[in-house]
Amino acid sequence: MNDRLSRQVDFILELDRLKNILRQTTLADGSRFENSAEHSWHLALMANLLGEHGPDDLDIAKTTRMLLVHDVVEIDAGDTFCYDAEASVGKFEREELAAERIFGLLSDDLAAECLELWHEFEERSTPEARFANAVDRFQPMLLNIATEGGSWRRHGIRREQVEKRLAPIGEGSPRLWEYTQQLLDDADQKGWFGSAPTDRSQPKNSTD
Amino acid sequence: MNDRLSRQVDFILELDRLKNILRQTTLADGSRFENSAEHSWHLALMANLLGEHGPDDLDIAKTTRMLLVHDVVEIDAGDTFCYDAEASVGKFEREELAAERIFGLLSDDLAAECLELWHEFEERSTPEARFANAVDRFQPMLLNIATEGGSWRRHGIRREQVEKRLAPIGEGSPRLWEYTQQLLDDADQKGWFGSAPTDRSQPKNSTD
Repeated sequence: MNDRLSRQVDFILELDRLKNILRQTTLADGSRFENSAEHSWHLALMANLLGEHGPDDLDIAKTTRMLLVHDVVEIDAGDTFCYDAEASVGKFEREELAAERIFGLLSDDLAAECLELWHEFEERSTPEARFANAVDRFQPMLLNIATEGGSWRRHGIRREQVEKRLAPIGEGSPRLWEYTQQLLDDADQKGWFGSAPTDRSQPKNSTD
Repeated sequence: MNDRLSRQVDFILELDRLKNILRQTTLADGSRFENSAEHSWHLALMANLLGEHGPDDLDIAKTTRMLLVHDVVEIDAGDTFCYDAEASVGKFEREELAAERIFGLLSDDLAAECLELWHEFEERSTPEARFANAVDRFQPMLLNIATEGGSWRRHGIRREQVEKRLAPIGEGSPRLWEYTQQLLDDADQKGWFGSAPTDRSQPKNSTD
C-alpha cells in the first residue's frame, strides 16, 4: 500500500517537469511562451465549459482525464511544432517510449489506464477523443487570434495550413467549427496569416 | 447561441491570466515560482490518481471540476501567502468580488455553477471539497520537500505551523495524512523547517 502511494508520489513529482516544456504559442498577452502544463489546465477547464457543444452523450469526465494526461509524454519527447514536418518525423515513436517510461512509474493498473487514455486521444477513435482534440486545436487558435496572428505570423503559416490543422475541431464539434470559421475569416481580413509560398506538409498528431 | 459561445470564449481568454499569477512555492527543480494555472493542472491530475485514497463514494469528476476553478479568483485577488496573516485580512471579500466579476462573464447558469463549485471548495462542506482541499495542501508540501524545505525555509515557517496548515489533508484522506506525517518527520530530521520564535497566526483558507 505504501509502495503504491510512493509510486504515485514519484509520478506526481515527475509530472512537475511538464511545467518546463514550452509550446509555440504565447499567452494571450504575448508576454511569454505557454507551457504544456498550464495549457493542459486551460483545455481541461474548457472541455467542462464547452462540453455542451459536443455530442449529446459525451462523457466529459473522461474527456477531462484525457486532456489532463495528453501532453505528459512531452516531458521526454518535447513539444513538436505542428507545422514543422521535419521535426515530426519519428514523433509518435518518441512519444510512445515516453508514455511507457513515464506512466510506467505508476502501478500497473494506473499505468495501463493512463496509457489507454493517451492512445485514445492520439487515435481520435471515440467521441471523447474527438472532442478533446477539438478543444486542443481550438485553444491555441484563440491565443493566436488574441496576439494578432501569433505563431502563424511568426512562422509564416498560411490560412490553408491553419484550416487543415484545425479540421479536427469539426470532427469533435460542428458548432465550434462553425465558430472557428468566423474567427478565421476575421483573422484573414486583418492579415494575420502568413503568405509564404512554401508548402510544408502538415504532420498528423502534433501540438499547437 | 452565438452570444452564449462568445461569452464562453471571453471567459476562456480571461482565464489565460491565471498563468501569470505566481505562488510562493517553486517548481520541484527550484528553477522558478509556480503559477496558479499549472498548479491547478497538477492538482486536477492528482485528484484523479489519488482519488482511491479518499472516501469510497467520492465523486472524482466533481472534485476535478472544483480544482480546475478553485484558483480562478486569483486573477483579480492575487495569490495570498498562507503564512502571512496580514495579507490575509480581507482575502475572502476580495476573492468573493473576483468570483462575481470573473464567473459573471459567463451566461447565468454557467456562472452559478462555477460560483457554487468555488464556494463549496472554500467551505469544505462536502467530501469532494474536503478531498480537493487535501490535494491542494498535499501538492505544495511535495514541492517544498523536493526543494529541501522551499518556502518553509525561505520564510522561517516552523513545523507546528506547517502541520496546522496541512491538517485539512487528514479531513480529506486519513491515508494521505498518515503519509504526510512520515514525510514531515523526515523533513524535520533534515532540518527543513524554520525555527524562528515568531508566532504568526495562520489564516483560514489561503494558498500554498
